[in-house]
Amino acid sequence: MLRKFIKMEGCGNDYIYFDCLNEDLPHPEQVSITVSDRHFGIGGDGIVLICTSDVADAKMRMFNTDGSEGKMCGNAIRCVGKYLYDHKIVTKESIDIETLSGIKHLKLNAENGQVQSVCVDMGAPILEPKAIPVNLEGTQIVHQDIQIGRNSYPITCVSMGNPHCIIFVEEVASMELEKIGPLFEHAEIFPEQVNTEFVRVIDEHTLEMRVWERGSGETLACGTGACATVVAAVLNGICKQNEEVTVKLRGGELKIIHSDETVYMTGAARKTFEGVVEL
Amino acid sequence: MLRKFIKMEGCGNDYIYFDCLNEDLPHPEQVSITVSDRHFGIGGDGIVLICTSDVADAKMRMFNTDGSEGKMCGNAIRCVGKYLYDHKIVTKESIDIETLSGIKHLKLNAENGQVQSVCVDMGAPILEPKAIPVNLEGTQIVHQDIQIGRNSYPITCVSMGNPHCIIFVEEVASMELEKIGPLFEHAEIFPEQVNTEFVRVIDEHTLEMRVWERGSGETLACGTGACATVVAAVLNGICKQNEEVTVKLRGGELKIIHSDETVYMTGAARKTFEGVVEL
Repeated sequence: MLRKFIKMEGCGNDYIYFDCLNEDLPHPEQVSITVSDRHFGIGGDGIVLICTSDVADAKMRMFNTDGSEGKMCGNAIRCVGKYLYDHKIVTKESIDIETLSGIKHLKLNAENGQVQSVCVDMGAPILEPKAIPVNLEGTQIVHQDIQIGRNSYPITCVSMGNPHCIIFVEEVASMELEKIGPLFEHAEIFPEQVNTEFVRVIDEHTLEMRVWERGSGETLACGTGACATVVAAVLNGICKQNEEVTVKLRGGELKIIHSDETVYMTGAARKTFEGVVEL
Repeated sequence: MLRKFIKMEGCGNDYIYFDCLNEDLPHPEQVSITVSDRHFGIGGDGIVLICTSDVADAKMRMFNTDGSEGKMCGNAIRCVGKYLYDHKIVTKESIDIETLSGIKHLKLNAENGQVQSVCVDMGAPILEPKAIPVNLEGTQIVHQDIQIGRNSYPITCVSMGNPHCIIFVEEVASMELEKIGPLFEHAEIFPEQVNTEFVRVIDEHTLEMRVWERGSGETLACGTGACATVVAAVLNGICKQNEEVTVKLRGGELKIIHSDETVYMTGAARKTFEGVVEL
C-alpha cells in the first residue's frame, strides 16, 4: 500500500507524520519500527498519527522507534499544530490537541498562512520527590548535593510529566555526557531512571543546555527538559517567574515562561520534506 | 524551488538520488550538506546525481555529507542501474555508467520490470604495496605480522581503487571496532590511511565482515571492502578464484567473484521512498 507522509522537525526532534483524519494507519507499532530506520526506512525519531478527536481539534498519537506508544512530545505537538493550520484543517490560531497526557492547548504563530512557531501550555511542574519520582526526603529537591559516581553534584529535581534532574555547571560544550549521563540515568535514587540536564547560565534570560534522555542517550533537544530547566533555574534564583527565558539546545532554541500556574514553551515547527512510502 | 528525489539503499548504504537527465541540480555540494542531515534534512550518506553521458548509458556523480565529491560507490551505482531500468530510461539489462573512477559495467537482474539486484564489474585488484599505498617491502602483503598498537596482527593489503587492510579473526561480532579501527586507520605504514576489514571465515564460500572506513568509522557496508576481502581470502588460500563467495555485512549480503581479470560484486538495490523537497 502506498501511503503519503510528511516529515517535520522541532529543534531537530524529527518525526514522520501521517494524516489519519480520513484514512486509518493499520499496525502503527510495526510501521514505526520499519519507517523510523535511518538507513532502510524514511528515518526519524518515530511516527506521529494525526487523528480526529471527540474532545479537541485533533488527537495526536506517537510511537517511538521501538514501536512503543509515547504519551506526548513538546517538539512533535508543535508540528501537529503546523500541519493542521497549514493544510487549513483548522483556521483558528488557538487550538486544543488530545494526547495520552491529556488535552494540550497550543497557540499558533502564522505568517502568510504558514505556522512558523507554536506556544504550548506544558502544564504545571511537579516538585514533590515521591511524585517525580526521586528517593530523597523533603518537600522539594533544590540544589541538594548528591554523590553520583565519584563526584558530588548539586541537583534540582522537577517532573514535567517525566522525571528530570538539573545540574548547573560552568561549561557544557566540552562535557563528556556519554560518560556522566548514564551515571545519573541509573543512579539508585531515581526508581524510574531520569532525564538529566546540564545547564550553563549565560544570563538571567538565557541558558545553554545539553540533555541525556533515559533510554535514548544524548538528544538534540528535549521540550520537557527545557521546561524543567527553567523551573529549576527559578527555584535556584537564577531566573525569574513570569519572564521569558531562552534555552539554547543543540538542535535549536526554545523560549520558556514559568508562570504562576503553568509552563509555556514556544519553539519553531518546520516541514523538511514530504513523500510517499510503500507500507 | 521544489525538487523531486528518490531514496534508495544498497546494503544499508543510503543515498538521495536526483534525476538530472532533463534538469540540472545547481550547487550539488551545498545541497548534499543540507539534505543529507538526518534530522534537519532528508537524511542519507550523501547525494547522487544521475546525469547524461557522452560515453556511457548515464553518468553518476556523488557527493558526500560534507559536500566533497566522491569517485565511485559500489552500493550506490547498483541503485543508479535500478533507477534507469525501473524508469525505462534504459531497456537493456547490460549497461555502462560513467564515474570519476572510469566507466563501470553493470548487469541488471530484473523481475516484473523492477531491478532486484545488480552485478558490478569492480575492476582488478591492486596488490603492489606502493600503489595501495602501504609502506612495506615486497611485491605483495599477504598474512604479514605487523605491530598495531600493543598487538601484532597478520595483515593482507589490497587496493580496489582505495586502500584496504584485511585481518582474519576468530570472532567479529563482539570486537570493539571503535577502539581497534582507529589504530589501523592512523598507523604510520598507511600514508593515505586505510579501510580495515575484520573477517571471520564461516566456510570457503561464506565470510562475515565488519568494516572501519577511513574518515567515517564503522559503516553498515563497504562494497570495495567486500571485494578486497575476497581477494585477500583467495591470496590466503581460504577461498578459491572464480568461485562465488557470500560476504555477510551488518547492512546485508554481497556476492563476490574474484575472476582471473577482475572482481564482480552482486548485491540488492532497493527503493525506500520518494518525495519532494524545497531546495
